[in-house]
Formats: sequence, structure tokens, C-alpha cells
Amino acid sequence: MTSLNIGLIGTGFMGKAHAIALRSVATAFPEVSAPVLDCLVDSDIDKAGRLAKAWGFARASDDWLAVCSDESIGIVDICTPNHLHKDMALAAIAAGKHVYCEKPLALNSADAKLICQAAAEAGVQTSMGFNYACSPLITLAREMIAAGELGEIFSFRGSYFEDYMASPEVPFSWRCLRSQGGAGALADLGTHLLNMAEYLLGPIADVFGALDTRHHQRRDPPSGEMRDVENEDIAQVLLCFERGISGSMEISRVATGRKCGLCFEISGSKGSLVFDQERMNEIRFYAAGDATGRQGFRTILAGPQHPDYSAFCPAPGHGLGINDLKVIEVRNLLRAIETGTPVDEDFANGYRVQLLVDAIEKSAEQQQWLKVSSLGLDA
Amino acid sequence: MTSLNIGLIGTGFMGKAHAIALRSVATAFPEVSAPVLDCLVDSDIDKAGRLAKAWGFARASDDWLAVCSDESIGIVDICTPNHLHKDMALAAIAAGKHVYCEKPLALNSADAKLICQAAAEAGVQTSMGFNYACSPLITLAREMIAAGELGEIFSFRGSYFEDYMASPEVPFSWRCLRSQGGAGALADLGTHLLNMAEYLLGPIADVFGALDTRHHQRRDPPSGEMRDVENEDIAQVLLCFERGISGSMEISRVATGRKCGLCFEISGSKGSLVFDQERMNEIRFYAAGDATGRQGFRTILAGPQHPDYSAFCPAPGHGLGINDLKVIEVRNLLRAIETGTPVDEDFANGYRVQLLVDAIEKSAEQQQWLKVSSLGLDA
Amino acid sequence: MTSLNIGLIGTGFMGKAHAIALRSVATAFPEVSAPVLDCLVDSDIDKAGRLAKAWGFARASDDWLAVCSDESIGIVDICTPNHLHKDMALAAIAAGKHVYCEKPLALNSADAKLICQAAAEAGVQTSMGFNYACSPLITLAREMIAAGELGEIFSFRGSYFEDYMASPEVPFSWRCLRSQGGAGALADLGTHLLNMAEYLLGPIADVFGALDTRHHQRRDPPSGEMRDVENEDIAQVLLCFERGISGSMEISRVATGRKCGLCFEISGSKGSLVFDQERMNEIRFYAAGDATGRQGFRTILAGPQHPDYSAFCPAPGHGLGINDLKVIEVRNLLRAIETGTPVDEDFANGYRVQLLVDAIEKSAEQQQWLKVSSLGLDA
Amino acid sequence: MTSLNIGLIGTGFMGKAHAIALRSVATAFPEVSAPVLDCLVDSDIDKAGRLAKAWGFARASDDWLAVCSDESIGIVDICTPNHLHKDMALAAIAAGKHVYCEKPLALNSADAKLICQAAAEAGVQTSMGFNYACSPLITLAREMIAAGELGEIFSFRGSYFEDYMASPEVPFSWRCLRSQGGAGALADLGTHLLNMAEYLLGPIADVFGALDTRHHQRRDPPSGEMRDVENEDIAQVLLCFERGISGSMEISRVATGRKCGLCFEISGSKGSLVFDQERMNEIRFYAAGDATGRQGFRTILAGPQHPDYSAFCPAPGHGLGINDLKVIEVRNLLRAIETGTPVDEDFANGYRVQLLVDAIEKSAEQQQWLKVSSLGLDA
Repeated sequence: MTSLNIGLIGTGFMGKAHAIALRSVATAFPEVSAPVLDCLVDSDIDKAGRLAKAWGFARASDDWLAVCSDESIGIVDICTPNHLHKDMALAAIAAGKHVYCEKPLALNSADAKLICQAAAEAGVQTSMGFNYACSPLITLAREMIAAGELGEIFSFRGSYFEDYMASPEVPFSWRCLRSQGGAGALADLGTHLLNMAEYLLGPIADVFGALDTRHHQRRDPPSGEMRDVENEDIAQVLLCFERGISGSMEISRVATGRKCGLCFEISGSKGSLVFDQERMNEIRFYAAGDATGRQGFRTILAGPQHPDYSAFCPAPGHGLGINDLKVIEVRNLLRAIETGTPVDEDFANGYRVQLLVDAIEKSAEQQQWLKVSSLGLDA
Repeated sequence: MTSLNIGLIGTGFMGKAHAIALRSVATAFPEVSAPVLDCLVDSDIDKAGRLAKAWGFARASDDWLAVCSDESIGIVDICTPNHLHKDMALAAIAAGKHVYCEKPLALNSADAKLICQAAAEAGVQTSMGFNYACSPLITLAREMIAAGELGEIFSFRGSYFEDYMASPEVPFSWRCLRSQGGAGALADLGTHLLNMAEYLLGPIADVFGALDTRHHQRRDPPSGEMRDVENEDIAQVLLCFERGISGSMEISRVATGRKCGLCFEISGSKGSLVFDQERMNEIRFYAAGDATGRQGFRTILAGPQHPDYSAFCPAPGHGLGINDLKVIEVRNLLRAIETGTPVDEDFANGYRVQLLVDAIEKSAEQQQWLKVSSLGLDA
Repeated sequence: MTSLNIGLIGTGFMGKAHAIALRSVATAFPEVSAPVLDCLVDSDIDKAGRLAKAWGFARASDDWLAVCSDESIGIVDICTPNHLHKDMALAAIAAGKHVYCEKPLALNSADAKLICQAAAEAGVQTSMGFNYACSPLITLAREMIAAGELGEIFSFRGSYFEDYMASPEVPFSWRCLRSQGGAGALADLGTHLLNMAEYLLGPIADVFGALDTRHHQRRDPPSGEMRDVENEDIAQVLLCFERGISGSMEISRVATGRKCGLCFEISGSKGSLVFDQERMNEIRFYAAGDATGRQGFRTILAGPQHPDYSAFCPAPGHGLGINDLKVIEVRNLLRAIETGTPVDEDFANGYRVQLLVDAIEKSAEQQQWLKVSSLGLDA
Repeated sequence: MTSLNIGLIGTGFMGKAHAIALRSVATAFPEVSAPVLDCLVDSDIDKAGRLAKAWGFARASDDWLAVCSDESIGIVDICTPNHLHKDMALAAIAAGKHVYCEKPLALNSADAKLICQAAAEAGVQTSMGFNYACSPLITLAREMIAAGELGEIFSFRGSYFEDYMASPEVPFSWRCLRSQGGAGALADLGTHLLNMAEYLLGPIADVFGALDTRHHQRRDPPSGEMRDVENEDIAQVLLCFERGISGSMEISRVATGRKCGLCFEISGSKGSLVFDQERMNEIRFYAAGDATGRQGFRTILAGPQHPDYSAFCPAPGHGLGINDLKVIEVRNLLRAIETGTPVDEDFANGYRVQLLVDAIEKSAEQQQWLKVSSLGLDA
């Protein structure tokens, strides 16, 4: 396949992670054609220029709209704050580009649906930046569940705990505004966990949500004044999967001490799995069929027997990092473009997750169980 | 104080644990008077006789009612299946005995209230066998929270996972019947966790529950036929504490791989605590005030600096066991009798917990949030 | 069997642990006859009297020699500082008593041999207080090794780290004197680990030792003056087992942060075991034969499937404590007396361990490998 | 600085890891100039050509000698089997190239010295591929030790356990031959650990070694016949650092279950550190000065407060992988070339480590303590 030119918009946390991944993807996975790092976009053209040089991009721009429709660009990669995703994605799709977008796809499910439908109609490949689902041990977990290694599934219990807004001293930011961040912990962290749950166990049918804001105001750096926080610090969710099992989730951005605590425990009649993203190279597996007196949770270390690990290292237990997961994510997109088969986490998933977020928020407001399908937004 | 004669009813799991604790309490805690192991009661008189001899009881009986009103008995200790607690407790109270009862206090909150009121009117001391709350590290946790070491509390997330009924092969038993076990996982495991939550953070004001039964029928050993399981395998609970913080709980008796997984995580502005009863000699404490770059969850090992540990061992990290917790529980009761000051976990707590169980069940049925006070049963 | 009267000498850490164990042993293990807590001995007669009452002993004494030869006494239980063990044990043996002695048996192997031979000639049963070897999961480990579950054993790596003398502020005590404590970390901690190694893997044939004292002087409380510490803080040992495998050990009483860190890792062709006494209710087992991609160290929680656990609790994962191990130790002695079959850890083992300690010290002094048999002291 | 052309020799495990690192180093660390991936060398020219294309190298070669002296090449990067390092390094140095070499530098310390001296005379920058020492948390550990956060250091206890040769079924390979692999576990794993120990605590002065081979023969794939294994599976080492503290190490390539178990525990008067490379994003720190009853090993998660982490990710706890460590290693070399200041782990360290390996082997043979300086090979 011909290598595709990349236009990457955004130079923050995710912008850099994408840049690293785009650059090393073909070394890790020689079966895909290395994308060409063509244009780096930032609203600050000096920054764009400086980083383009450092990160190996051919050129820089401060005009994302122009880049989205630039003929030379094959893939538009969106790593900007949440509220910008919609317009950028739509513009890129309109120009027939493949699109790679960080989560959340949009600020609400109506917008997400719009984007999703546009992409489907345009026939472009899309990919959501859900990071964690494409991890070797998570893909292993999905395979184990699908193969029946856990037997009949009884329950899912998940959490995503971080503490980046635990301190009242953390300043006000766009993340606190509905118009820019959308939901709070749900949008930033919950989207990962909701996607993970559906990736592993299939669609969620019903939700019951409860939201809680612990810091109602934060100081806004420019003005020095206190501003109202418009979204939740903590979200609690009960849920039912379509396959007929119940689950629960808790998501918090004020969980003091937790840095990347995306955790879940799945219990089944034949076994259980326990995972914590802070130890992303381990998954704990209990096999009920082990000999009596020899049963216990096994700490499986990621290794070349697990999906995609060997692209990075032939030796088990040596460990992948978060940036390696982005490499897998990029490989998935490139392969999808090459084969025409969508990735597991495409915009349809981005929309699904946004639908769930909206349903949880509405359920919390109405204090009642809600069928996700009742939002009337299903594709 | 004069030593009191004990009448212990029940010779199963808890009966034996109580017997061990009653026998060693005064060695661990010389400040209390050793109780006299007077009468051991079992409906099987041969078993009662054999075990009375082995366990050091002066005599045996198969007539619990007689023992409850026996003049020589000072404390009646109830370790029988759940549905027997009510009549035994009421009989003992009526005879002016102090009463020590395994959880749950009764099969529903109305009965629990009755017992509780009878005890209050009789002026006897009572104690619930909640096991885990009197553990050195749990008492430490309560002290740390009360002293503000965690700052403002943000959230409580708890679970109690065991797997003793995970297999479909586990036979039908009294635990599966509402008339004998009451609720399912909630009664057997949830009562511990609910009590723990209130012990640490004060009264729970509102609950939202969801119940799930995974094995709808189990084979009944005598008949060999399948019988309907009448209560839940899994309970999920959202809750609000009176102090204005939210919490969540999940309780399961089908959590494959978990053996005594009573866990919680409490997050606060200054720190967090994480606990797992399967590692009962450890509590994890994150102090947000630690120096930058040196922060992390500390694994505190139980030691003589912590409440009651030194009664068992002067050296830290050497470890207590579940039976040692029962020794503390017995000491608490003996001290309460001696001083006239109720224990932390008395029948009022047993009633509180039963009220919560009822509220959760009713909430699950009605699929709506419920004020615990709305049950109209408050003391 | 008739119950035997106990004379317990010493009321410190171990004296209390023995008292608790002696009192509850027959409740946990109804198959043995409860010993009679007859006489408690302390050089401070007031203390002896007070504690005898609290601990349930019939009487008190400050005359250990008289108690050792008292006709009514069946078992003499020695929980005094190290240098007193020899005379007490010899006196008790001379009077035909069964003897239970805390480690180390003596200050050197010559004395230990003397005691050991006296006991053998007298035909009394003896037991060493090695605590940890009789733990359910350690006995399991021994059984697994013997049954070949680890395949051919490759190596043993052990450590026993505590920090009770890590601070230079810890005052001078009898433990620092060769004439009263014997060796340092080796005598206090190493004896446990050496016994454990032989319990699991059989006799040690050769040793190479290195000793290190980090705090050469400590302040003596009565005088306030600095005194020379006469024994080691850290001992490092290389060793060869008779079965032809190599091992290593490190023992430290200045390992800051460790409280009861008796650890080992045994690797074999079919599997490995990893243990840490600070988590005494867990053993980690790696089964090389597990399916590819599903291999990992299993955390086995102690439960009723493991030796002796069910005497304390029928439910797995609920946890035993250090004092429960002493109960097993006492049961072992009582059973030995009843059956005439020596316990696993009798005075012969106490002597073995002392022989190893002496060999390690001599090896360290000579800076060369030493055959344990070359000490010329073998029984 | 002008970007330098890289000639990378070897396309195995480390070849690929280097390729990934060389390609992404300037994205992670914009302050260095991206090296130019010029020529990839493999004795199989087809493989070299195929991978050169995939990995982004401009050209391929099967003539390492020509590449070493190629004028366009600025840095020669050696990722071949151990016995080839010497000739390649010498050739590259002779041509005035900077050299980056995987460990071990040579098969013995005489050769290592030769290379080291040649490099010093040529004035080129060199770097050893020790992987683990440049990890954020290891650099943190070094800084903490240097700053006195652990107080006076008492001891070092290290191990490096893997199991890649645990099974007797693992075939014979060049690693089993002295002429090609040099030492066994010592060369392959021990070099990492020895370097780590000196990186953290300074030079090792004396060693005592013991070597053990568990599988004396392995089947050679081409012939199908059993061949003698010429080096050790297990190495045990006692050691003294120049700073006057003792240490111990055990290294095994037959430690069933361990995949990358490079571990150490450093105890000091004010604190301790515990590390396990299998959890490379965590270091455990015990601060003796923490409040009484609140002390415990803290699990510090790698984050942007720690050296070099933020180049990869601004969020703590998200995790680096083994390949990220190679990126840091490459950055160190590029910076050294730019500034003229040698890296921490240059060929002088490669020589030091080889000297230690030789001393350990000689000590094991002579069964006596050996001064490292006594080898008469010191620079």
C-alpha cells in the first residue's frame, strides 16, 4: 500500500503520543506501510513549527480547516480539546479523509451520531483513541471470554479512578465547562471504561446513574476568580448488558492516590479476570478448574504469546508502556484502511459510548433506570 | 468483676470461633475477667456433649430455651442459622441475659427492631458478631478519618466478594430460603459491609439497590430435586451517607476466586485508604501531603501501634487471624458489661444494618432511591 | 490420654503466645487432651502471680528449678532469654519432663548437642518453637515438593528481614551479647530460616557465611554509656543441600521497613513457590505446565484444603495469625507425647540449626566453605 | 547539532528495540537531533534489505566491516551475539565512530579493557545497552541515595531471575558456549545487575562467587545430539562495596516463572527501596521518618516528577515500557556526543562489569574472596 500523509491536529499530551506512535508503527509492525508525517497543526504557529521539526513532520500549520481538506493528506488525526472534535471530524470526513480522533468523539450523542453517519456515508475509515482496549492483555481477556474460558459470565465490576482534580487547588479549566468538556469524569475517564466494558462483554442495554460534584467551584487562573464547575467529579453507574448480566461502574477524577486506575473484575462460572491499568502488563486470572488446594489468582505477565506483544519485544515480562498501545491503535487504523475492514474501536463505538454517557446523565437526572435505546438515537 | 457463665448455642463455623475466643480472651486481655464456659447447646445432644468436653464447657444441652433462662447463665451467645436468632435473642433478653449474636440479627428490620427494643428495655448489654469492624487496622481507619487525616471525604467504594455459591453444583441450603436465610448475599455478606461503612463514615441516609440471582435453582440433597433459590446472588447498591457523600457497594456470593474479599476504598482531599480483608494485616494509605515524587500508597502492616494488636503480639507484621478478631469482639462485650457502656456494634447496629438491607431490597423492587428513614421503622 | 500439667517459664512475647496457645489448643483440635495450665514462672514473683491469674494458671512461682522437677508437672515450656535455655532444658529432662523450648535451643552447638542427647536418653518428647514451619501453607509447600509438583528442584533463595535493630537509637540489650544471645541476627532470625530450609529441602551439607555489624556500639540504658555490640546485624550465607542443590540466604535485623520478612523462593523444573511470612496466608505457586499464555504465579490463599487450617476456620481466605501457628505447634507436641512419635521440629532439629549457625560463623571467620559435618559434632 | 548517520548491526531482539528507539528519540526528546537511520546490517542480506525498508533505514548491508569504516556513518550500533562485539567495536573505534553496544562489552575483561582503552584514545563517545539503569525510577533511586534520603546505607540485596533456560527442552545455543556467550547467566543477566548495583552504590571492591549448572547438556538442533553446556545457569555472589557495605546477589536463567525479575532491596537507616523490573513503573519506598503507626512501604508510581518520564507522558501512572528505556539510552548517547560529556553507562562501565564477572568466576573457581583490583586489569 502507498504510505498515507498524516495531518495531526493538536500538540498536547495526546498529540505527542500520536506523533511517537505514527513514527514507530512500521518498525514495530513491518506489515503496514509507514505513514508520512506530513503536517502538524497547532493554533500557535510557532509552536507548530518548532514541534514539527522536532517530531519529524514535513511542515506546520495553524489552519486546521485547510489541512482537513488538503489534497495531499490521507489521514486527519484529531488530538484537540473535546469541543473541537465535531467540526474537525466533519470537515475531514467531508474531504474524504480517514479520521483518527481522541475520545470523546463529541460532546453529546446527537453530535456523535451525526459524525458517525457522515463517516459511514463517506466510506472513510475511522478510529477512536480509546488507548486501553487494544492492549495485549485486554485483547487476551476478550478472547478468553469469547472462548468460554470464564464459563457463564456472572458480573462485571469496573472503575476508573484518577486524582488529577482531587485537590481543590486544581484550577478551573475547559474540562469544567459543559460547552467545552461535555460531561466531567464520565467524558474524560468514563468513556474509556464504557468502551472497555462493551469491548469485552457486548452492548449495554440499561443504565442507572448517579453523579456527584465534590468541588463546586474552582479558581480561574486568568481572572483569579472562582467559577462554577459544570460537570461531575464522580459518576456511579449500575448497568445491564444485553447478554443479560448486571454490572457496576464508578468513575472519579478526585480519587486521591489513583493515577490511571482503570480496573475491572469479571466473574464467571469457570473463572475470573481482574485488571488494573496501573499494572497494564499484568492480568489476574482465576481458573476454577485448577486442582483443589492449588487454586488462586494467577498473575499473567504480558508476553509474546499474547496479541501484538511480540511486535515490541520477544521476551515476556519486559513490559509495554502506554505509548506502545497507541502504536497498536495506529496499526489497527492503517490495517483497516488497507483492508477496508473497520477497526474494533471506530466512530460507531465513539457514538455508542457517547450514547451511554448521555443515558447515564439523563438517568441520574431522572433518578430512574433508562434503556439506552430509549434515547431515540440508535443508528 | 465476677466471671460470667456463658451459654453458647450452635457448634458450627461461628460456634467454634466463639468457643476459641471465649477461652483465650482473658489471656490476650488480662484486664477482663475470663468468662466461664458453662453450657454448650446443640440440637444434637451427642454432638453437644462431645464438643462441650473438647472445647472445655462444663456441660451440654439440646434445650436452648432452658439455657436462655437458666439462672446460672450470664451471657447467651447465639451462633445458629439466621432464622433462629430472633426467638433465642428474645428469650435470652426476657431472662435478663446479656446477648451476643451472630449477624444478621434477624430476617427483617421489623424483627430486628423488636429485639433491639427489648434489649434496650431490659437494660442488658448486646453485641453483634460483625467480625471485621473491630480489626486493629479498621479501628485505625476510623480514627484516621475522625482525626481528619484523609481531609474532606469524597467517596466510599466497597465490595464483599466471595465465591462459596459460584458453582451451580453447590447444593440448595437454608441460605437459599427467605424464611430461613432472609436476603441472600446481602444478609450473609452485605451486613458486614454495611456495618463497616457506617462504622467508618456514619449513617447511610439513602440507598438505591439492584439484585441479581445467577443460579435460579439448586439441587436439594435430600430429595435430589431442583428447588428455587429465593434470594439474590449479587447485590449492587448506590448510597448517600448523611454526612453528604456518595458511595457504592457490590456484594456477591458468586465472585469466583474471592474467598473473603471485603474491600473498600475511601478517598479524601488529604488522603485515601484501601483495604482488603483477604490481607487483613495490611491497610493501604495514600498521604497527599507526602513530598512530590515520593507519594504512593503505603502498605501499613498491623502492629502494636494499632488498637488492640499488642494484646496478641508485641512485634509488628507478625499477623493476626480471623479468630483473633473474635477475641477482640468478646473483649468488647465483656468490657461493656463491666462498664455499662455499650459496644460499638451492639443490637442497635444489628437493627441499623437490617434496616439498610430491607431498604435496599425495597429500593430494588421499586427501582427508585429510598430514604432509609422512610421505612418508618426508625427507633 | 490424661491431660498433662504445664509449667511455663517466661512471660514475655513468647510466654504470652504459648499461654494463649496452650489454652485454646483443645478447642481447635478436639482430638488432643487439653493441657492443664498449672504453674507460671517468672523471676518476678508478683508478675508471675498477676499473670498466672489473668492467663488461667493455677499457680505461680519464681523458682524455675523447682518447677522443672515438680512431680505434678508433665511438660516444661521454656520461653526465657536464650542463655537460660540450656540449664532449664537439662533440668527438665533430668526430671523426665517433656520439654517445649523456644529457639535457639542453646548458645552453641556443643550445648545443643548435650541437651539433645540428654533428651534422647531420657526418652522424653521435645519441641522447638520454630513458629513458621508448621504453618498450613508451609506444610503444603513441603508436601508439594515431596510429591514432585515442582519437578527437579533448582535452587532455594531465602531471607529473613526485620528492622527491630535498624535504628542506632535501639538500646543495648542481652541480644547484643554473645554470652546471652549467642549469635545476632543468625540466632534470632536465621534459626527460623535455616530450619525452614531443611524442613522443605532436607539437610544442608555445606555453608559459606559472611557477617556484618552495622551498629558497633549501642547505648546501655542503665549506665547511659555506649557498649560494644558483640554479634552480627546481617548474615549472608551461600549453601549446598545434601540433595545437590545450591541455595542462598540473607538475614538482617536492620532491614528498615521489614517486620517479619521471612521469605523464600524455590525454583524447580515444573514449578516454583514464593513465600513471605508478612503475608502468611498466601503462597505463590507457578505451574510451568499451565497452558501457554495462561501461566502466572497463582496466589493461593490458605484454606481448609490445606493442612490444619480447618481446625481454625472452615472458610478459605479468612486468615490465620501468628498465634494460631503456636496452637498447631502445641498440638504437634501433645500428639507426639500421646503417640510416642517425635514432632518434625524437635530438639534434634534445634541442634541441627545450632550446628548450622556455628558452621556459618566459623566459615565467615575462616572465609571459606565449610562442611557442616566437619564441626565434629554430628549426633 | 547535525544529525548523525546510524549503522545498526544486528536485527534480533535488541536490533529491533534499537531501531524503534532511534526512530522515536527526537519526538520524545526534541532537544536532541534525530539520528538518521542510514544502514541496517545483517549477515543475511535479504533480511537486512527487507527490514531496512520496514524499519525506515535508507540502505542495507551484509558487510559490517565496511559499515564500521563507512565515512557517512557517525554512530555504529552493535546488537549482535556477544562474541562479535569485540571486533565490531574495535573496527568502529578505529574508524573514529561513536559506538553503542549491547552488553556484555566482550567475553572477558581483558578484551573489554582493550576496547575501552581504544575508545578512550580515539576520543569517541560510547554507550552500553544496560537498559534498566536509565529507567526513571532507577535514576530516582540513585538521586535519593545520593541525597541521603535512605540515610546510612546498610545493605544491598539483588537478584535477576528469568526462566528462559529453565526447561531441559530448551535447545543448545551459542549462549551455552564459552567461546560465544562467555559466562552464562552472569553474562546475560548478571551484567545488568552488577551495573545496576554500581550505578546506585558505587564500585564493588570484593566478591565471592558460586556457580551452578543445572542442565549439563542440551540437545543441539542441527545434529539432534546432546552437547555440553559450558557455563552456569545460576550464579550466587556475596560482595563488598568500596563504601564499606556488604551485598549479595543471585542470578538465574532457570528461575521458573520469572520473566524479567531484576530485583533489589536497599536498606538504610532512614529508609529502604525495593524494586522489581517486572513492575518497572513502581518502586517501593519505606520512610522510617513517617509518623508512628503510619509507616509502610509506599508504592511510588512513575510519573512526570521523575527523571525523563515526562518526555513520554505528562500523566503519572500511565506507564513506560522496556522500549521507552532504550529511547532514554539513545538520548543519553546523542547528548553525550553533542556535549562531549560521557554517558553514565559508557564502555568504562562495560569494562567494570566484565571485570566483576571475571572476578566472580575466578572467585568461584578458587572458592575464596577476591579483590576486584587483584585481577591486575584496572584501567
